[in-house]
Parts: sequence; C-alpha cells; structure tokens
Amino acid sequence: MQISLIGSGNVAWHLASVFVEKGNSIAEIYSRSLVNAQALSSELGAGVAQDHLDFSQSLSKLFVIAVKDDAIAEVVENLKLPKDALLVHTSGSQSIEILNQAQEKGIEIGVFYPLQTFSKAKKVDFSQIPICIESSHSASLDLLKQLAQSLTVHVLEINSKQRKRIHLAAVFACNFSNHLWAIASELLQYEGLSLALLKPLILETLEKAFEIQPKPAQTGPARRHDFQTLSEHFKSLDEFPIWKQVYQVMSASIQEMYPLGK
Amino acid sequence: MQISLIGSGNVAWHLASVFVEKGNSIAEIYSRSLVNAQALSSELGAGVAQDHLDFSQSLSKLFVIAVKDDAIAEVVENLKLPKDALLVHTSGSQSIEILNQAQEKGIEIGVFYPLQTFSKAKKVDFSQIPICIESSHSASLDLLKQLAQSLTVHVLEINSKQRKRIHLAAVFACNFSNHLWAIASELLQYEGLSLALLKPLILETLEKAFEIQPKPAQTGPARRHDFQTLSEHFKSLDEFPIWKQVYQVMSASIQEMYPLGK
Repeated sequence: MQISLIGSGNVAWHLASVFVEKGNSIAEIYSRSLVNAQALSSELGAGVAQDHLDFSQSLSKLFVIAVKDDAIAEVVENLKLPKDALLVHTSGSQSIEILNQAQEKGIEIGVFYPLQTFSKAKKVDFSQIPICIESSHSASLDLLKQLAQSLTVHVLEINSKQRKRIHLAAVFACNFSNHLWAIASELLQYEGLSLALLKPLILETLEKAFEIQPKPAQTGPARRHDFQTLSEHFKSLDEFPIWKQVYQVMSASIQEMYPLGK
Repeated sequence: MQISLIGSGNVAWHLASVFVEKGNSIAEIYSRSLVNAQALSSELGAGVAQDHLDFSQSLSKLFVIAVKDDAIAEVVENLKLPKDALLVHTSGSQSIEILNQAQEKGIEIGVFYPLQTFSKAKKVDFSQIPICIESSHSASLDLLKQLAQSLTVHVLEINSKQRKRIHLAAVFACNFSNHLWAIASELLQYEGLSLALLKPLILETLEKAFEIQPKPAQTGPARRHDFQTLSEHFKSLDEFPIWKQVYQVMSASIQEMYPLGK
C-alpha cells in the first residue's frame, strides 16, 4: 500500500518503519520542519519530505496523522488530499470526529491507534502491541484491519468512547503506577537505599496481577484493614504532605473495594 | 546448620524448602495447629512437628519466626530456647526490638527478611531476592550473612528504621500499583474491554522506569500539565467518586513533582 505520514515524531517514526518493513511504500512525509521530515525519510530510504500540507497530487491511499493531540485540528483544517483518500489519526484520547472537516470534503476517515508508548531510541516489537481501529466506512475499516493485521495479532475494533476509556485506564495503570515507583524511589533514597531493591517484588506483583487478576491479588495493610500499620505509615509520612494524601486516598479506595468483613 | 521454624505459613514454607535445598537441616517446625506443622514437615521430609513453644531441648542454632506480624509478640513471650540460640523474625514492618524479651533471657536476636511476596503454589527463585539482615551481635550477623549468601547474591545489612522505610515504599510501589491496575481493569470492564489490552503498555512502563528511573520516565496529562485532558478525565469519573479522588490526588502529586515551567 502507498502511505503518507503526517508528522515525524516518535509515533510517525515507528509506524513508518514498520509499514516499510511489511512491504508498504511511504510516498510523502510531512513535518512543519523540513529537516525533521528529511531525517525520517533518509532513515527509511523512502518518502518525499515536505513542509506543506498539500497532498493533492499524492498517489497514496492512506494518510496517517501522527502529530501531537493539540496540533491535529490545525493539520486537518489545512490538509489537501486526493479524492479517494483515507485519513486516519493515531491518538488515544481524540475522537474520530476531530477529522470531520476532512469527511465533509468527501474524504473517508478513521483511527489507527497503537496501544504503546514509543521512544525514538528503542526498537518496538509491533507483533505484541494491540492496535485499535475505527471507521464508519466498511471498506476503510477492512483496509485498516488488513494493515493492522500485517503488524500484530491483536487488532480490535474500538469506537471513540471505548478508546477514551482505554486512555483513561492507561493513565491509572501506567502514568500513576510510574509515579508511585517515583515516590517509592525517593522514600528509599532518603534512607540511602535504591528502588532496585524492590524490583523483584514489583515484578512478582505484576505477574500475579495478570495471572489471577489484580482484584483477588491485592495484599497490604489497607486490604487487611490493619489499622495499626496504616496509622504508623501515615505518621511516618508527616514530612511529605502530598505523599501522605496519596497514601490516604489510595488506602481509602482499597478499603472501599474490599469492605471490612467481606 | 540446624534450623527450627516457628510458623507454617507461606514464608515458613518457602524458607524451610530453600534451607533444606542448600544443605541445612530442619530440626523442629512449630505451628499452633499440629496438622499444619506436620504438613510442612512431611513436604520437607524433615523436622519434628510440634504445637508448643518449648524448644529448650532443641539442637538448633537458629530459630526463625515466620508467623503473622501481630502474633510475633505472643510467640516471643512463650518461647523457650536453648542457651546459645539465635532468634530472628522475618517481618518487614516489625522492629528488631519486638524480640527484646528473648534478648533479656540471654538469647541473641536478629532479623532475616526476604523482600518478596510468597504464594504456596508458586516456586520462588531465591537467587533473585534481596535478603535484609540485622543483628547487633557481630557473630550472629556473620552467621545470618553466610546463610543469606547461600541463597542469594543480594544480601543487605539493613537496620529497623531502614526496613520500615522499605516496607512503606513497597506499599506504594506494589500494593498501590496493584490497586491502580484493579481500577483500570474495572474501568475497562464497564466498556466491555479487558486489562490484558494494557499489558504491553504496563510492561514497557515498568521496563522504562528501571532503565532510566521512574522520575525522568514520567509521562501523561498531569506531567504535561495538559489541563484539557485532565478536566475531561475528571468529568468522566463522575460515576466513580473514590476513583475520581484517586485521579485528583495522583495528578496533584505528579504536578508537584514536576512544577510547571521546570
């Protein structure tokens, strides 16, 4: 398939690479900065770099927007696409409706959302990554499904409401967990200790959560309603008021999930 | 070494097994319930089961208390040990001082705390587990160090204050993270989705946290001070008041760690 990339950040970089790897060809790569578009194009050995959004002469079928969430609307407004194009964005938090302006011009629209975080330095194994696709045109949905299935076995049709929920759940499961590890790390540093100490325990906790589900796997003083330990921990956080609040709310939430005597 | 186990729960079970595996012999196993002590003794093919705390005739050097935290004090009160015994507990949250009553009777005391969570069904690879040891007697500390080093390369001398800090950090890093995964799982279930979707993302988050440390690895709307997404997420949690509080406090704590403009 002929594909054009709109964006040259981490997501564009990884998607373009895997598209090429799977036998697709990249026609154009857009970036506001021509240098960035050229960097990606020379890395791929494919794709014409451009810093304007006029794709009206492009031979591509699929146009993939992979820019920051708050830049999508402006891109859509200025985009010129050939008549039979399919335009998708790759964002977890944005509705398909942000592409409506293109649809009004007769362009088919959709979403192609890989559920992973990307760093430029690190090669990604797409075969393990869920890809969430959405389109109200059945031919476009089929095309996205085919493309996604060439990258991974985990392809899901996900509507915009579900995708927003996935994004919210990921904030809890990933962003917030990472912050808890940051807190743990600082708490240990004050005693001259390292977070590496807790790595085996964190790995085991994660393994168990996916083996038997996190709800039955829950342990700890809040789960046991062990008020003595809770109050000792609470007191020991006097120097760290915001972490004390985190401790208090997380413990309250655990106790609500496992009411005493149940 | 001759070792006696006081307790027959998960920790006692795993420690006894690995002690035997490494060539030590188990002299006695105590449980309040003789049946439980016998179950462990027959599993090991070693150790005399008993349901009383009189070890005065024991040939063991080391006595390992592996009972629930709130049962330790009562065990120590009723324990009868031979004169040259070394008594240790295995708890992360209890000070060494809970053994003082034994020390007053001339017994040496210490702590032998394996930093892992144990399930009866699952074999544990001790070689990857940090073991925290403590004793104010240098000969006893040496003996504990030797025993710990026969199980793992990660042996640390940790005082009671540090051990309490490790336990607190583990509550943040493990118990609370697991609860966040439970929340994410329920949020997804309401949309007909499964937590398994997020597994690659969670694994990548964890990997990155240990690769570059969790603080620089932090991502997400709170880290970016992306108020639009924060307020959308906040609104979408109206039906789940306690999780809304979790979202609010976690986001506030992240924003405090990464002040705007820094």
